Amino acid sequence: MTENGIKNIKRILIANRGEIAIRAIRAIRELGGESIAIYSEADINSLHKDLADISICVGKSPANQSYLNIPSILSAIEVSYADAVYPGYGFLAENPHFASICEKSNIKFIGPKSETIRLTGDKAAARKAAEEAGVPIIPGSPPVENLKDALEIASDIGYPVLIKAAAGGGGRGMRVVHNEQELTRLLPVAQREAEANFGDPRVYIEKFIKNPKHIEIQILADEYGNVIYLGDRECSIQRRHQKLIEESPSPFINDKVRKEMGEAAVRFAKHVGFTGAGTVEFIVDEDMNFYFIEMNGRIQVEHPVTEMVTGIDIVSWQIRIADGQELTLKQEDVKQKGHAIEFRINAEDPDTFTPNPGKIERLYLPGGFGVRVDTHIYQGYTIPPYYDSLIAKIIVYGKDREEAVIRAKRALNELIVEGVKTTKDFHLKILGDPEFLSGRYTTQLVDRKYLGITE
Amino acid sequence: MTENGIKNIKRILIANRGEIAIRAIRAIRELGGESIAIYSEADINSLHKDLADISICVGKSPANQSYLNIPSILSAIEVSYADAVYPGYGFLAENPHFASICEKSNIKFIGPKSETIRLTGDKAAARKAAEEAGVPIIPGSPPVENLKDALEIASDIGYPVLIKAAAGGGGRGMRVVHNEQELTRLLPVAQREAEANFGDPRVYIEKFIKNPKHIEIQILADEYGNVIYLGDRECSIQRRHQKLIEESPSPFINDKVRKEMGEAAVRFAKHVGFTGAGTVEFIVDEDMNFYFIEMNGRIQVEHPVTEMVTGIDIVSWQIRIADGQELTLKQEDVKQKGHAIEFRINAEDPDTFTPNPGKIERLYLPGGFGVRVDTHIYQGYTIPPYYDSLIAKIIVYGKDREEAVIRAKRALNELIVEGVKTTKDFHLKILGDPEFLSGRYTTQLVDRKYLGITE
Repeated sequence: MTENGIKNIKRILIANRGEIAIRAIRAIRELGGESIAIYSEADINSLHKDLADISICVGKSPANQSYLNIPSILSAIEVSYADAVYPGYGFLAENPHFASICEKSNIKFIGPKSETIRLTGDKAAARKAAEEAGVPIIPGSPPVENLKDALEIASDIGYPVLIKAAAGGGGRGMRVVHNEQELTRLLPVAQREAEANFGDPRVYIEKFIKNPKHIEIQILADEYGNVIYLGDRECSIQRRHQKLIEESPSPFINDKVRKEMGEAAVRFAKHVGFTGAGTVEFIVDEDMNFYFIEMNGRIQVEHPVTEMVTGIDIVSWQIRIADGQELTLKQEDVKQKGHAIEFRINAEDPDTFTPNPGKIERLYLPGGFGVRVDTHIYQGYTIPPYYDSLIAKIIVYGKDREEAVIRAKRALNELIVEGVKTTKDFHLKILGDPEFLSGRYTTQLVDRKYLGITE
Repeated sequence: MTENGIKNIKRILIANRGEIAIRAIRAIRELGGESIAIYSEADINSLHKDLADISICVGKSPANQSYLNIPSILSAIEVSYADAVYPGYGFLAENPHFASICEKSNIKFIGPKSETIRLTGDKAAARKAAEEAGVPIIPGSPPVENLKDALEIASDIGYPVLIKAAAGGGGRGMRVVHNEQELTRLLPVAQREAEANFGDPRVYIEKFIKNPKHIEIQILADEYGNVIYLGDRECSIQRRHQKLIEESPSPFINDKVRKEMGEAAVRFAKHVGFTGAGTVEFIVDEDMNFYFIEMNGRIQVEHPVTEMVTGIDIVSWQIRIADGQELTLKQEDVKQKGHAIEFRINAEDPDTFTPNPGKIERLYLPGGFGVRVDTHIYQGYTIPPYYDSLIAKIIVYGKDREEAVIRAKRALNELIVEGVKTTKDFHLKILGDPEFLSGRYTTQLVDRKYLGITE
């Protein structure tokens, strides 16, 4: 064990499965701790179960009877004498109720305090906190009362604006409006539609962000008020808001904006009393203005691209922070060097993205210079149909983006998965897409160009 | 293809198999070239054959009928219109005859000129070249004529000295002598033994290096006289002169000596007109004096540790140099950052090192932060008995040696190979060995402590 090993928490139960459970086992082992895996009946042949020091079955295959089953997980904590819980992403990772139970039971939840999870999980509260912290938010209004209000607000914000149903979500019930005339004409239409669709006629006005990009900042914050950012990640290659490819650094923003975003993210994290590893997500417009979307107080699928360019082991730090250690990394020690891109290999049809669980009949994973693979699959493994379809992350590193792209093609072409369909061919298509290659792609690229979806 | 892609050579035949063939395919692909694999009948299910753009069977399973079969390989070059040959290591990699045929046939041999291979392959000529280049060699004599000569030479060199059979090799027929009395007594004994064992009574006197370490310098040299060194590799974990674990940088020498060794290696490479990627090997004594052993003008198994700490793709540069490109890297651009260790996973009994070919019934390779794997095996693959037993290289990176060692334990423990025995458990033993951990181990560690062999 190293001098940086963990001292206060020693037995860590991983309340997750798949590649992120293995990622946690790796970090725990390197820190000198013991790892306790939980698994559902469907995961009896899962590798996270075999690689952990101990493993405990927590219930039936559907997640709500196992990985989301809090009483069962608490029992597993009790029988294994775990003193901490690593939640990963998804499942209970952002469940304030679970975090709060852990706090009360004197089990260290490896993440922020339950009250912080609650705050950042509440869109309105998070938006207010961002405003208080001096972090730009998308200019917008409370629900408008009448046309006069709407016109005034729109004029303040500046056209184009969006009319959004207050009760809507996921892009439904939105209209872009370019001037007063359009607003006058469309407001009553939008109100009627909102009433019809959501049973609530209220709408609000928000600035319309043209050609938006999703760029996020990785944060580390210890329990003593030290907060740093580990640079940015560009995550605009998305299908219906699901990220598919992520890179660091963003090929779009410049270093001045990168620094401003980093500092804004740190301000936000400090303002909400955040501790652990988290991500502040922003929308960035075509003029590099950035606006806060939300903060995720957990590890993210795409964290390895940051690890590749900074050389910092984020999961290890996340656990060390929960162990009560002080963040010895200083902001000036953090450098993004070279370029990294992550490809999510999902067991899905590469054209329709329909999940395609099943048995992996043949497998060869890429390797060699500048290639990292995080996966829980092996040849002969049967992907169960109950959980998300991510089966491997292929992360490539190059001294610059051009080299990373070339290496990515090489690595993806090397990947052999037989028995289930994967998103490999989708990724290869994107790697040949001029918009992607230009680095100026937006969150709409995939939906618009490859799926014919417009919002 | 990148601006650094290859321009003059485009179709590269890889005259090798296994992991190094795949390593070459990766580099060729990233450079925008085409790869042509050759394979023997035993390698019909080998992955290097499947991953290459084209593959050609060159003969029966024994290497002398396929991978060493020059006429057959020349035919493969001809039918595939290859314009270059990548030799890898072993097989024809240091065969001046093969290199010379390639030169005459206007096929680019990706390595030094045949005359350089001939020179560096001749121990006496290489020793002379080192002396001329001002590179320290182990003080020694030509074969001694009589006792008076021997005493004079030993007195010049300084005791202890070795008496070595001129016709001997591999440590056989050597005797350590600590003073004049011992030399007087043992010289005739050694001469009689040499006569008995090798049919040649001649012996010579050489300085005895106590507690020797094997440390080598990686060189890159282009065709325009630019030569740089990429730091050192410590390769003293050997079993009977076969390397098992290598690391960069050496934990033993200091930066001053590292630099002196690097500069000496560059002098040697320049002196012999070396081009390509090569390694100058040294013996280092307990006082950090270093002595030239030999130069290998080819890629070495352990090259990835250098790639990990320098970020420089050695195989890619090797090919670019053969393409006629100028070495744009300058010596001052080369930094060894962090620490890397490579473990050779051989299909061998971890106690006796007896080869153990056979079918791989189950396989999981380690991954994640700081882990690189270079391998050609997959689950279901049958390791043929004809070639060397290296089945995978696991290379770990840490910000320092301590972290690399911790990560190595984690990664090796993750490795699952069922169906054949591997050296995994041997490596785990070494990772717990205090001498290894101290960084002051010598080339005798494994033989003495784990195999009971003394020379």
